[in-house]
Order: sequence, then C-alpha cells, then structure tokens
Amino acid sequence: MSDLFADELGDEFALIDWIHQCSKTISAPGLSTGIGDDTAVFQSTAGAMLATVDTLVEGTHFTFESATPEQIGRKALAVNLSDIAAMAGTPTYALLSLTSPRTLDQNILKRVVSGLVELATEFNVALIGGDTNSTDGLFSISVTLLGMAPKSGAILRTGSQVGDAIMVTGAIGGSLPSGRHLNFSPRVAEAKAICTAANVHAMLDVSDGIASDIRHLLQSQKLGAIIDVDAIPIHADVPTELSTQERLQCALCDGEDFELLFTVDAKEADRLSRDETLSVNVTRIGTITDSGELLLRSGDSTSPINNTGWSHPIGD
Amino acid sequence: MSDLFADELGDEFALIDWIHQCSKTISAPGLSTGIGDDTAVFQSTAGAMLATVDTLVEGTHFTFESATPEQIGRKALAVNLSDIAAMAGTPTYALLSLTSPRTLDQNILKRVVSGLVELATEFNVALIGGDTNSTDGLFSISVTLLGMAPKSGAILRTGSQVGDAIMVTGAIGGSLPSGRHLNFSPRVAEAKAICTAANVHAMLDVSDGIASDIRHLLQSQKLGAIIDVDAIPIHADVPTELSTQERLQCALCDGEDFELLFTVDAKEADRLSRDETLSVNVTRIGTITDSGELLLRSGDSTSPINNTGWSHPIGD
Repeated sequence: MSDLFADELGDEFALIDWIHQCSKTISAPGLSTGIGDDTAVFQSTAGAMLATVDTLVEGTHFTFESATPEQIGRKALAVNLSDIAAMAGTPTYALLSLTSPRTLDQNILKRVVSGLVELATEFNVALIGGDTNSTDGLFSISVTLLGMAPKSGAILRTGSQVGDAIMVTGAIGGSLPSGRHLNFSPRVAEAKAICTAANVHAMLDVSDGIASDIRHLLQSQKLGAIIDVDAIPIHADVPTELSTQERLQCALCDGEDFELLFTVDAKEADRLSRDETLSVNVTRIGTITDSGELLLRSGDSTSPINNTGWSHPIGD
Repeated sequence: MSDLFADELGDEFALIDWIHQCSKTISAPGLSTGIGDDTAVFQSTAGAMLATVDTLVEGTHFTFESATPEQIGRKALAVNLSDIAAMAGTPTYALLSLTSPRTLDQNILKRVVSGLVELATEFNVALIGGDTNSTDGLFSISVTLLGMAPKSGAILRTGSQVGDAIMVTGAIGGSLPSGRHLNFSPRVAEAKAICTAANVHAMLDVSDGIASDIRHLLQSQKLGAIIDVDAIPIHADVPTELSTQERLQCALCDGEDFELLFTVDAKEADRLSRDETLSVNVTRIGTITDSGELLLRSGDSTSPINNTGWSHPIGD
C-alpha cells in the first residue's frame, strides 16, 4: 500500500461495506455478483456481462507535474481494464466523465482523452458515452468499463481451496516511484491465457499491494495463507541498494502493480509456472491454508502479515 | 439554460464533439448509437442495452447549503434515469463513484448514498458497483446507469419528420430557483406509456432548456421548428409577478426541467394530448419544418430563437 492512499483505505472499506449493505435492499434478478469483487457480473442472454468504475483524482492519484495528460487518461482506462482482466473478461465499452477546473487548458483535456483513446484502441474498447463538467476544484477523470465474462464464467475473488497454490503474474513492487503505474499493461490477454491453461479458482488484480489484496482471496471463508518470502518476484523497479527487508516491504505493500494474483490447484502450479505459451511469467508465491491467518514464511520461521507489511519482521 | 451552466456549455459541446470524433476511430461491432444521444445503445442478444453517465460537482451543480445530501444523491441518479427515459428505456443497473473531500463527514456521504438508494429502489435499479476516492478539492458524485431499450428499439434524438408535432410532458421553467431540479420525477414510466400510445419519432429530456435542447431534434438534418408561444406549458414555479416575456424566457431557457421533448406525426398530437391514460399532461408546443430555422411564433409574427432565448423578443 502506498502512502498516497493510506489515509483513505480504512474509511473507504467501511463506506463501501455500508453501501454494499444498502445495495442489497434492491432486488436485482439478473445480478450474479454486485459490489465487492473487481467488477459486477450480471446476466444477459449473450452471457454474463461485467461492469466497473474507477475515478482518478488530481492530487490524490496523480499530479500534472508527475504525469503527462496522456498518461492520466491512459491510466484512467488501464485500471479499469485491469479489473476486467481480473475477472478473465473481455472489455467492450467505456464511458468517460471528465471534471475539469475552469482554468484548465482545453488542449490538456484533449491530451488526456487522447491517452485514453490510444489505449482503448489497443484493447478494442469503444468509447460509447461521456460527460464533461467544470469545477472550481481539482481535475478528475472517471471511467466506467463494460465487458463480457468468459463463457465458462467470470473468475471471482472467492473460490480458493485449502492447499491451492497462490500465484502472481510478472514482478511486483516499486510501481509508484518508478512511474510504472502510469504505463503498465493491463493483463487482459494474460488472464485469459492463464484461465485457458489452468483451472483458476479465484483471481484479482494487485492494486493496494499483495499484503492487503491477498485478504480478498480469503474473505468470507475461514482460509489463511502462507507466503514464501524467497519466492516473491521483486520488480527491477525496486532499488537494489535497499535492504532485503526494505525490498520485501516494497513488493508486499507498494501496490499499483496491476498484476494478477490468483489461486489454482497446487498440482497445476509447477506446470503453469513453466508454461512458455504464456506471455508473462507466473510465479507461485504461497499456499492457501485453513489457519485463518496470513503468514510470511522465511526458511522455518513464520510471522503474521498486516496491511502495512508484517508485524514482526523476518530476522528480528 | 441556467447561468449556472452558461460558461461551460460552449466548451463542453466542442470538447464532446472532439471526443466523439476520437471515439469513431475505434471499431465497435455491437454499438448502434455512441456519443451524442441521451444514452449509448449497444446490442446484446437480450436486446439493445443503454448506458449513460452523469457527474454532479459541488459548486457547479449544487452546494451543500442549497441541497440536502440526500437530494444530491437522489439527483445524481435522477438525471441518469431521465436519460434512460428519453430513450424509452428501462433502467437496470447503476455504478456510483464518489469523490469526497477528506474533511467531509462520513455521515454526509452516507446520506448522499441513502438519497440515491431510495430513488434506485423506487425505480428498481440495482447498485452493482462503485468507487470512493478522497480529494483535496470539491465533492462530486458520478453515476453510470445501464438499461434496456424497448423491444421496438430505443427512441433516438434523430428521426423527426417535416410536419411532426413537437410535444412536451408536464410544464417547464423555474426548476432551479424553486429547487424542483432536486426532486423531480424522472419520466421513465411516462416515456414508455407515450411510446405505447403513439409512434414517437424522436425524443430527449429537457436539461438545458427547450430553446437549447430542441436543436438536438434538428441536428444532422435540414429541419427547422416553429414553437407556439401561447402553447408552452409554463410551470407554476415560474413567478406570476414576472412579465409575460420574462415568464416565457424562464420556460424556454431555465433548463433542468427533465421533462420529455418529443415528436410525433401531427395526426397523433391531439389524441395524445387528450389521452387520459397517461399519468402526465402532454402538450403540443410546435411543429417541425423544413426551413432549417428555429422560430418562435406569437400570433402572426415569428422571431428566431437562440440558445439564450430569442434574438428579437416578441412584441418589440
């Protein structure tokens, strides 16, 4: 988890839970998954559809000093593509809402949209609607993305089994300081390829950091997990001059990796990690347990992980 | 058109047009109507689906002094329901994005959501997803609403024929000063009833005011319109102490009425305006012409209308 988001997460989760409770009061015949997963899932006779929304706010998620307008527009779509990927879905349509300070140059806005459209074109997403508004406050960009679930069904966050291997695509850590969060490639094709190659039980994308996000794989179940310290694929963006513990902390907690975190039957893990037809490395980083605890293992010693890392650092 | 929005409309339309041009570069096989109508229309084998997004921004569209939190949440959904109504559609699913100042009391946020959920329940709309964010700027609320088009197809803004009657539901003007814009009833059921009772050629909802919105019924066609001054149903919210011209100005230009503006074959107009099975009054206010001009008629004299009213006021 990045400090950038640290102050809002606690409240955000409480509020989302409250909204979730409110939303349950409304009947929704075709809805199979509402608030609480990477995207909603609802039925049409064409198959299950996906819908998700994410808003990026100036000063909270980016600044015009640290990101180009094109990167901001690109990321606003990319984070939603990552959510569709986390369901193994195919993105289809996007709606865009821009809220812009009256003083902002119109050309900046166009550059934001250009960045979004370029990525939309790459992922064959049509921009089908939108809204533009003026504000006396800060710039924000909100993207709603629709998609289709795979015929075999969307991959939810729930569904992990005791003994499952926990796997991650690519490498993690250092995304925010390096600026990788502005130009990452959403794992849409990779998610589909992985789900074709193996029976994926549960999946999500890593946005807050593994230490935090892995809990979503355990929620509503009395599951636990053990993460193997030495197995974690630490990204080259994490400075090598940091200590081993600092580097581990970056990998676990930086967030904004937008890699896929998923579980498969342990028997499939080795084959999957050696599968050369996948266009991204897939690494087993741990195992689902029945302990109800989230633990970090280094050699023979284990210690609990909390949202900001581990309570008792390995090696103390 | 309200002064509240006056400064953003010119730029907004230019920017939307530019975005629209960008969006055309992306192929979208199932898309039948993209940017430019009340909602997008895309195909699923269940039928045509609708999608629309609207964002309300503190200071631009409301203030916490002039609206309760519940009214703000309610309106954020209501304006989208009005867009679905304008397609004669059935709203189904909503996604909510809240951007909230860090200092805003969480209970205010909950009250905003409560106002939205209450209206969602009334219209049987399920809240299926959302996003919450912190900002150092102003509060904003963005709602994406999905819906189904009627089996006979969504009613677009285009489709009017020369000689068509121009009709409006309810009464117009005075919505902003009276606060009616915060508690109006989106014409979802009314739109369906009208489209069952008559062959509606084109329809939209009145958000910027008839003087501005009526142009959308004429776009991409060499059509014109004559509006009969004396036929316009002026809302009781327009103060009677104003002059006749001032009252007319309110009706034409205040906006935020969220009534339906539509065209039907002139032969159907009288029957429709006397149809007692409709739960709202429907009034013929004019006629589609082939002149390419938008005119206001009072007795035997006509004068052009522009976005801010008419160029040469009647009676001068």
